[in-house]
Amino acid sequence: MKRLHQSKSMKERLEPLLKKMSQLCIDTFLVSDLHVIRWLTGFSGSSARVLLSPHRSLLFTDFRYAEQVKQEVDGMESVIIQTSYVDSFVGGGYLQGKRMAIQEEEVTVYEARQLGEKLNEVEIVPVHGFFYEFRAMKNDMEIDCMRQAAAISEQVLEQILPLISPDVTEVDIAAEISYRHRRLGAERDAFDPVVAAGPRSALPHAKPGADRFRPGTLIVIDMGCIYRGYASDQTRTIALGKAPKEAREIYNITREAQQLGIDSALPGMPGKELDALVRGYIEKHGYGEHFGHGLGHGVGVEVHEKPRLGKLSDDILPLRSVFTIEPGIYLPGKYGVRIEDTVVMEEGGVVPFQRFTKELVEL
Amino acid sequence: MKRLHQSKSMKERLEPLLKKMSQLCIDTFLVSDLHVIRWLTGFSGSSARVLLSPHRSLLFTDFRYAEQVKQEVDGMESVIIQTSYVDSFVGGGYLQGKRMAIQEEEVTVYEARQLGEKLNEVEIVPVHGFFYEFRAMKNDMEIDCMRQAAAISEQVLEQILPLISPDVTEVDIAAEISYRHRRLGAERDAFDPVVAAGPRSALPHAKPGADRFRPGTLIVIDMGCIYRGYASDQTRTIALGKAPKEAREIYNITREAQQLGIDSALPGMPGKELDALVRGYIEKHGYGEHFGHGLGHGVGVEVHEKPRLGKLSDDILPLRSVFTIEPGIYLPGKYGVRIEDTVVMEEGGVVPFQRFTKELVEL
Repeated sequence: MKRLHQSKSMKERLEPLLKKMSQLCIDTFLVSDLHVIRWLTGFSGSSARVLLSPHRSLLFTDFRYAEQVKQEVDGMESVIIQTSYVDSFVGGGYLQGKRMAIQEEEVTVYEARQLGEKLNEVEIVPVHGFFYEFRAMKNDMEIDCMRQAAAISEQVLEQILPLISPDVTEVDIAAEISYRHRRLGAERDAFDPVVAAGPRSALPHAKPGADRFRPGTLIVIDMGCIYRGYASDQTRTIALGKAPKEAREIYNITREAQQLGIDSALPGMPGKELDALVRGYIEKHGYGEHFGHGLGHGVGVEVHEKPRLGKLSDDILPLRSVFTIEPGIYLPGKYGVRIEDTVVMEEGGVVPFQRFTKELVEL
Repeated sequence: MKRLHQSKSMKERLEPLLKKMSQLCIDTFLVSDLHVIRWLTGFSGSSARVLLSPHRSLLFTDFRYAEQVKQEVDGMESVIIQTSYVDSFVGGGYLQGKRMAIQEEEVTVYEARQLGEKLNEVEIVPVHGFFYEFRAMKNDMEIDCMRQAAAISEQVLEQILPLISPDVTEVDIAAEISYRHRRLGAERDAFDPVVAAGPRSALPHAKPGADRFRPGTLIVIDMGCIYRGYASDQTRTIALGKAPKEAREIYNITREAQQLGIDSALPGMPGKELDALVRGYIEKHGYGEHFGHGLGHGVGVEVHEKPRLGKLSDDILPLRSVFTIEPGIYLPGKYGVRIEDTVVMEEGGVVPFQRFTKELVEL
């Protein structure tokens, strides 16, 4: 398999990070977040640390990944630890300079204490959200991977719709989704698929249940996969049999609201502004209290990352950011609707990865 | 579905925890680890905190899980947070007393700082591994769930062996494993299945590859699932076609070593003692340097938990603990063998959950 992170792209990733470190007078940055490590180096193992410094950046992992790290990482030296990460940093003399930054939103109190005890010459500087701005603006390779992840999930959606009938259950369909994701080339699901019918469709995060589908209601199908480290995320709501009138009504309002979101997004817009626009549309139609979650979230090596689109978010939506637009209306005890695309921000606005129809499909 | 955590069992769980808190002069314990929360309350959502105190214990989660928490949790009150967990603790007046413990191996530096800033009347006490001893000794319900999880995985193993042929790939078989886990009633895989043939079987944590199987070599199949919150873990190594002589040799040594582990384990034994016994057997046969990992690990709500069985572990193997015994011999560039059962510690020694043959199966 072609390496995704050639030396060249690694260098492009590192340069702005090292520049920001220098501005903050940081000599070494200890990266603990595995998603950041995958984003930065391509390494996908379950245990790793990276030390960034202008002199020499290094990836640390354990013996289990000695082969994998060689296959996946190009352009950064790797070290196989013998005991603990901290002991390896110290024993190997890998720490440069006096000030070492840690990711305060990732490092546990325990790890920080260990670092403090063993690195008594080094000042530890907790830093928050250091990588967000860099991760938010996707490069071409990342956008390609996410477009491909979305294409896989759409193909799966097409395959599973004909399987939905009163003879099968939510759990059955969820299992089919996961299976087909992998068979079509995804690494795995990006999250456990949501397949929720009838009153359960009114729960935004329902787990699939073991009851058979009943006709005459709505089914929310929220799914995504990981392709070469990058996530997709999409939701469609369909009807099994003829949908009740009120279900059609909330379906149409949700669809129009979602389209309004797609049509209104522009580079540099605050996430909460787009949220407010779409929310306003749903409120105007009298369902504001039934849209209880944020409008969307960034997607990348994590299926939920920055920028956030919600009332409380301070994030803006930069050029080349990738995020979801996913309004919903949930009527407790009856049914719910959610329609979600993942979109990429271009100069003139956003372009969805998904192409699957948003007309109400009645099976 | 019958609730697993009735008020009664919740009370049994809480009592010793509150007693230990009292011994440590802790008024409130903030539980952040979702595995501990599932173990304690049965709640399986992806965001939660628990505050334990002798007066009143509470589970906090967000609106997404408002319905789920009612279905899953009995015997503990729940609170749906409006903004952040910390604000909810403070705003709701839920904190009791002066000293609050946090799980230092779970809480991030950022969360700890927030707590410190907002709870200025409260002393925050970092505590390490508070729940390990309680989690290690499984009750009957937990052992039943793990036995059932193991039975599902064994059934899947039986189903997928006939599918292995030179016409399919590791990825194909891994996808079948995940699919069948769910179809047979598991919540999901406990970890991504390892299906590794030929030289890849010599990598203890190989990801499934896209090449077709070739006859005349070994295939390591390491798999597990989650049933009602509890994990299973098992490995069998099989041959496709006739195994080479050396492959048979390392197979037999691994099998004998694994059996020695099963026969020698006794309640109260240190994990490193059992590791040393089995390792010694493999060393005696000249393959010591090719057994690069620990002998095993505890299994429960996490697929890797305490007690650890390895050279550096200080854990003992208490009565009613559940752990793996999984020696392996890996010949780089050729093939590897690993044989793994999950066992429960009873008065007279351990009893494996798995029944699948350990004779070398040649397909």
